[in-house]
Amino acid sequence: MMGKSKTAITPTREENFPEWYQSLVRGAQMAENSPVRGCMIIKPYGFALWENIQSTLDGMIKDCGVQNAYFPLLIPLSFIAKEAEHIDGFATECAVVTHHRLEKNAEGKLAPSPDAELAEPLVVRPTSETIIGETLANWVQSYRDLPMKLNQWCNIMRWEMRPRLFLRTSEFLWQEGHNCFETEEESRADALSMLDIYAYFVEEHLAIPVIRGEKTPEERFPGAIATFTIEAMMQDGKALQSGTSHDLGQTFSKSADISYQDKDGNIAHAWTTSWGMSTRTIGGVLMVHGDDDGAVMPPRVAPTQIMMLPILKGEEDLDHDLVGYSGRIAAMLRGKGVRVHVDDRDLRNGDKIWDAVKKGIPVRVEIGPKEMADQTLTFIRRDKGKESKTTLPIQEFVDMAADLMDTIHNDMYAKAKVMLRDNTHRIETVDGLDEFFKSGKIGFADMPITVLDDPAIEDVKKAHGLSARCIPFDGNGERVIIGKSY
Amino acid sequence: MMGKSKTAITPTREENFPEWYQSLVRGAQMAENSPVRGCMIIKPYGFALWENIQSTLDGMIKDCGVQNAYFPLLIPLSFIAKEAEHIDGFATECAVVTHHRLEKNAEGKLAPSPDAELAEPLVVRPTSETIIGETLANWVQSYRDLPMKLNQWCNIMRWEMRPRLFLRTSEFLWQEGHNCFETEEESRADALSMLDIYAYFVEEHLAIPVIRGEKTPEERFPGAIATFTIEAMMQDGKALQSGTSHDLGQTFSKSADISYQDKDGNIAHAWTTSWGMSTRTIGGVLMVHGDDDGAVMPPRVAPTQIMMLPILKGEEDLDHDLVGYSGRIAAMLRGKGVRVHVDDRDLRNGDKIWDAVKKGIPVRVEIGPKEMADQTLTFIRRDKGKESKTTLPIQEFVDMAADLMDTIHNDMYAKAKVMLRDNTHRIETVDGLDEFFKSGKIGFADMPITVLDDPAIEDVKKAHGLSARCIPFDGNGERVIIGKSY
Repeated sequence: MMGKSKTAITPTREENFPEWYQSLVRGAQMAENSPVRGCMIIKPYGFALWENIQSTLDGMIKDCGVQNAYFPLLIPLSFIAKEAEHIDGFATECAVVTHHRLEKNAEGKLAPSPDAELAEPLVVRPTSETIIGETLANWVQSYRDLPMKLNQWCNIMRWEMRPRLFLRTSEFLWQEGHNCFETEEESRADALSMLDIYAYFVEEHLAIPVIRGEKTPEERFPGAIATFTIEAMMQDGKALQSGTSHDLGQTFSKSADISYQDKDGNIAHAWTTSWGMSTRTIGGVLMVHGDDDGAVMPPRVAPTQIMMLPILKGEEDLDHDLVGYSGRIAAMLRGKGVRVHVDDRDLRNGDKIWDAVKKGIPVRVEIGPKEMADQTLTFIRRDKGKESKTTLPIQEFVDMAADLMDTIHNDMYAKAKVMLRDNTHRIETVDGLDEFFKSGKIGFADMPITVLDDPAIEDVKKAHGLSARCIPFDGNGERVIIGKSY
Repeated sequence: MMGKSKTAITPTREENFPEWYQSLVRGAQMAENSPVRGCMIIKPYGFALWENIQSTLDGMIKDCGVQNAYFPLLIPLSFIAKEAEHIDGFATECAVVTHHRLEKNAEGKLAPSPDAELAEPLVVRPTSETIIGETLANWVQSYRDLPMKLNQWCNIMRWEMRPRLFLRTSEFLWQEGHNCFETEEESRADALSMLDIYAYFVEEHLAIPVIRGEKTPEERFPGAIATFTIEAMMQDGKALQSGTSHDLGQTFSKSADISYQDKDGNIAHAWTTSWGMSTRTIGGVLMVHGDDDGAVMPPRVAPTQIMMLPILKGEEDLDHDLVGYSGRIAAMLRGKGVRVHVDDRDLRNGDKIWDAVKKGIPVRVEIGPKEMADQTLTFIRRDKGKESKTTLPIQEFVDMAADLMDTIHNDMYAKAKVMLRDNTHRIETVDGLDEFFKSGKIGFADMPITVLDDPAIEDVKKAHGLSARCIPFDGNGERVIIGKSY
């Protein structure tokens, strides 16, 4: 990190990474805490980012032959209980609905009506495996119904005691896919291919390099026979699990009785997968790319790719109609498929510039009376800062704007890739692991998988808050990535 | 309704309209009941329709300068209680969350943990007025922050004792807009203009003619100073309120204290509106356009506009590769911006045809070996049935396909408009109203607004289940539309 006299975000990353993150989320106007503990309000700018993530990923999911559907928010307690019987480690931190009416009590206060207690409590979905499983049991009858591939975009609730915006909130948004197949081979191939979709999306659209791998048995999703994951490294060296897909084998098809008649007339249980990506990913975008001045948005999902700032310096500048002029340039850029916004708010120039910086808008264009007279414009790349300041003839900029977005994407990806590479350390022993984290260094330990059998590793993991992130695909099953995580 | 030997949907509309509706929803594979009473599962075909509705309407809303955001699912009881104090008629049929953990009880059964009872119960949002109001109170500080226009697409829950798919379900999907202004004039103009958006959308995209008007005081949204509505007529003559916008005046800005500093430095309360459209609208599409063979989809939102059916009549037809040939024609049609699907499933031709009919796909194309040899195709319009069967050279059909969608839209709209006109009756007296509905006739009564002051009307409304649907804009404030409703 470069020395700077003053940063837009305090504290800096070096001073206090977690507080920097919270301050960045606020400064970039992405989200804020709500009056309901653990639940967040996603502000318009943050939500626009989610919409872009959603629409791109949704298209990729549909291209795999998956259909979107919608299942109920509330799940009968009996479904959860059935699942809990089959599956160890089933999470129980859920929001439980027990009443269906409010009324004034004896003290005149509004309260749950004692007459309206539900016979069976309902749980706000912590995931929809159970209700979708019960439904698939009806929908799947014959081999002709398979494969059946379903996805839903929805809100999810898991009670969190120590919430952090985007990273860990009681309510979050996600997509959850639930696919169903005739054979073991198909469900395994599907779980792997959905992970590829996530990896491709995160690398090509969010400019975040990831390690693809399989979770160790103890880190698996409860009930899965294999969990695949993409792990990204944040700037503090911690891992963020950024998308997972689960090969559920026949665990859920047996508990929900999803069975079908095969070509020979025999009844068999189906093989299922599930896979999800959530608003957590936004936290990853911020923690991988952000700097001490705020967010740095990857251009392909940035809500605004270019912010045009008409720079008015005094009363006399009003004669120039810089706003109208900027609007015409914006229209030319939109014609090239670039998302442009003209900041014509009644605010000081400095405030507008810092607003664009904190929000991480990939390119800021400044147009003053001099540029207007010269038919030029001045632009600054958010990822490179002031040293990238360039003045170009308008047409030249318009013609290169779409390519510029690709260049910025590639540069941001390359920078994050260097960070991941430089902070992934080959460590061969449990003692080495202990020393590494004792020394205050950050990053991932790339270790022989055999260390997981060394009983001494448990204490080291505990001492430093480490976990096995994944068995990377490119390690021939002989390596394991260990690190701290969100 | 025409006499038919056999219909795909039983009972017919004439025999039993409510059961016809349920049977149609099932037959068209739009939705089904879930294990949680009152909550529905929206099946892929129904959800694809919702996605098309959502994306078109979302674009129109954004064009009005509205930004999407996301607010929490759960609302503190105290917010609801505060609202209930300010507003008469506040609905209390809500899902109430009282616990945040499940655990095994003494009998070994999973149950809400007594240790995890919430200090304050939380309510699953029945609408987000209160939580958005509390948030706007923070976000709005100065006249520079206004207008502030927010929208969210989300799930909503209101406990329903007599649920009906799409029309009345405990959980439904909607968008809720919440706009905030400096002046009374602006909020009134906004409520009217959002209603125009809804009317335009419903007429131009769903092919449903509507009556625009204002609700009578007793039918207003609790807390609103004016509620505007679009009312559509179903084929059984009942009204479906298909979109509403509320001028909330300063009711919510005062209860949540949304105030701002004006240009002169004075503090003033803002003026707010809210406006919503929900998955109910899908029920309207089905009940306005459907016939005794199933759904009839308005082409502009139809998930599939043209279904291509390769018609195989025997083993020898396999030589023709009708599926591949149909796929090439489908590609040509997609090039014209038409949504096409080739039904290549391993099913009997008759089953595929009836599937397309029940789903209401606007145009069905049949290609057999003869058509392939002749370079022609045969198409049938869903809205016109068999008599529309036409054989055309392929290129000719491809060139006219997009126009054909407009023609079908216009014809469907015109047909629904005739139904609305023919079943809207000018009735001048309360006795006349009573006689009309006693006679078993269906439709809307277009009456002098003065009848609302006639005490006798209450009994007549009660006797026939009538309500004032709206004071239509085109009635100079002198008329009122009265009818049965969903």
